[in-house]
Amino acid sequence: MKLSAISLVLWWWAAAASASAPEAVAVVHQLRPAVGWGAQLVREKGEGVITCGSWRVGVEANNVRGWRTIPAACEGYVGHYMLGDRYRQDSIVVAIEAAAHAAALRLAGNGSDVWVFDVDETALSNLPYYARHGFGVEPFNPTLSNAWVNEGAAPALPESLNLYKKLLSLGIKIVFLTGRTENQRDVTARNLKRAGYHTWEKLVLKGDGDKRSAVSYKSGERQKLENEGYNIVGNIGDQWSDILGQPEGNRTFKLPDPMYYIG
Amino acid sequence: MKLSAISLVLWWWAAAASASAPEAVAVVHQLRPAVGWGAQLVREKGEGVITCGSWRVGVEANNVRGWRTIPAACEGYVGHYMLGDRYRQDSIVVAIEAAAHAAALRLAGNGSDVWVFDVDETALSNLPYYARHGFGVEPFNPTLSNAWVNEGAAPALPESLNLYKKLLSLGIKIVFLTGRTENQRDVTARNLKRAGYHTWEKLVLKGDGDKRSAVSYKSGERQKLENEGYNIVGNIGDQWSDILGQPEGNRTFKLPDPMYYIG
Repeated sequence: MKLSAISLVLWWWAAAASASAPEAVAVVHQLRPAVGWGAQLVREKGEGVITCGSWRVGVEANNVRGWRTIPAACEGYVGHYMLGDRYRQDSIVVAIEAAAHAAALRLAGNGSDVWVFDVDETALSNLPYYARHGFGVEPFNPTLSNAWVNEGAAPALPESLNLYKKLLSLGIKIVFLTGRTENQRDVTARNLKRAGYHTWEKLVLKGDGDKRSAVSYKSGERQKLENEGYNIVGNIGDQWSDILGQPEGNRTFKLPDPMYYIG
Repeated sequence: MKLSAISLVLWWWAAAASASAPEAVAVVHQLRPAVGWGAQLVREKGEGVITCGSWRVGVEANNVRGWRTIPAACEGYVGHYMLGDRYRQDSIVVAIEAAAHAAALRLAGNGSDVWVFDVDETALSNLPYYARHGFGVEPFNPTLSNAWVNEGAAPALPESLNLYKKLLSLGIKIVFLTGRTENQRDVTARNLKRAGYHTWEKLVLKGDGDKRSAVSYKSGERQKLENEGYNIVGNIGDQWSDILGQPEGNRTFKLPDPMYYIG
């Protein structure tokens, strides 16, 4: 049986939910054996030896910035991380904290409470694409990446979809705020619905000629929301540039993403 | 041979540097066997199973906030993390990034460039104390903790000391900014010198009756530095409350700390 990357990821996530074996994935993706991959070494800058795991934590804590590709030595590590339990567990922690925060909120309750979701690697997962492209070891390729986005076939990140449902049940409205551009509005909306996100207050995309940085664009759009009378009660993304910059909203949440960096 | 906790940690760090065996530490501290500890489970809030490793990354990425003690199930995990290679490697990544940032700075060069260091778990390590107190599983005990601080025997976090030396060589002055209070000024200065930090521009401690939050106190003191004409080119701490709040300085760095949380 030959599995496409997307069906493989969907299968893997379903399998992981029922605690299935990881060996098949390692074979299909020709990743290095799982034993010892946590100690895979990154050698760079000549100032000491660090492991891929420490590099990844450095990324998550916003210490390691401005990288264009993952360290070449970490392709196997990042692949195992993304396809294995750990990415899902790291995401679950974030979703649990976000849901607990939401449940404890004193909402305005007049329809003005919104939660801002990033799209890529937050609401939707492009793991099927990155699994075919070295998990971030290849430089970003806009042509191939756009072709994938235009398929509209990205699955939901399951933890984000659970959080989304929880927020809706609390009466919080959803604003999707993405670096995708206006010319991808239709396919993005279709993909979100197909992945299970059936309703939202706004889907904000970047103007096709908008040259602002991610922080400038996203914080500017959040400011617009506040100016329009919305109360941003939460803000979640996989990049620090999704959540930094004023206004941040009531609280921010950083989902894991060791595959790419957007400054 | 009976080792005190402090000599044990110093021995362990020296031994780790020359890749020695971890078994002795596991015996002395009666930690769980290293095999499988990465998958130690945290069960909380009834919303899914997460591991101590994912909890720790959640702390580092500022997703998990406001906790009083580490999850009880994670004592063994955190102990292994702190005494093993991983804490050191995670710290090395931060120090490498900080040193690279410093080396690339365009300094004013007139003596106004300063780097802000937190003290506990940043310049100095209280690991010898926490190793005797469950690595954060016990609630904070101000009496015991102050008694330890007043010994003035905390070793340097080696990566921070290396960074400190590098910054001095670049002509950057050091400001220590700590939540320790004025009545611990003498012992703190003595401990810093004993650990290898021989010079600094300022050592800022909290007033004995100062009730401000950590963020409010530390950002307020950074503002004072800027008002005095200093140029804060870097800012490093183990707590998010060390580095958040305006002004942040040119760039912030978050060292790992899974043992305690200061909001």
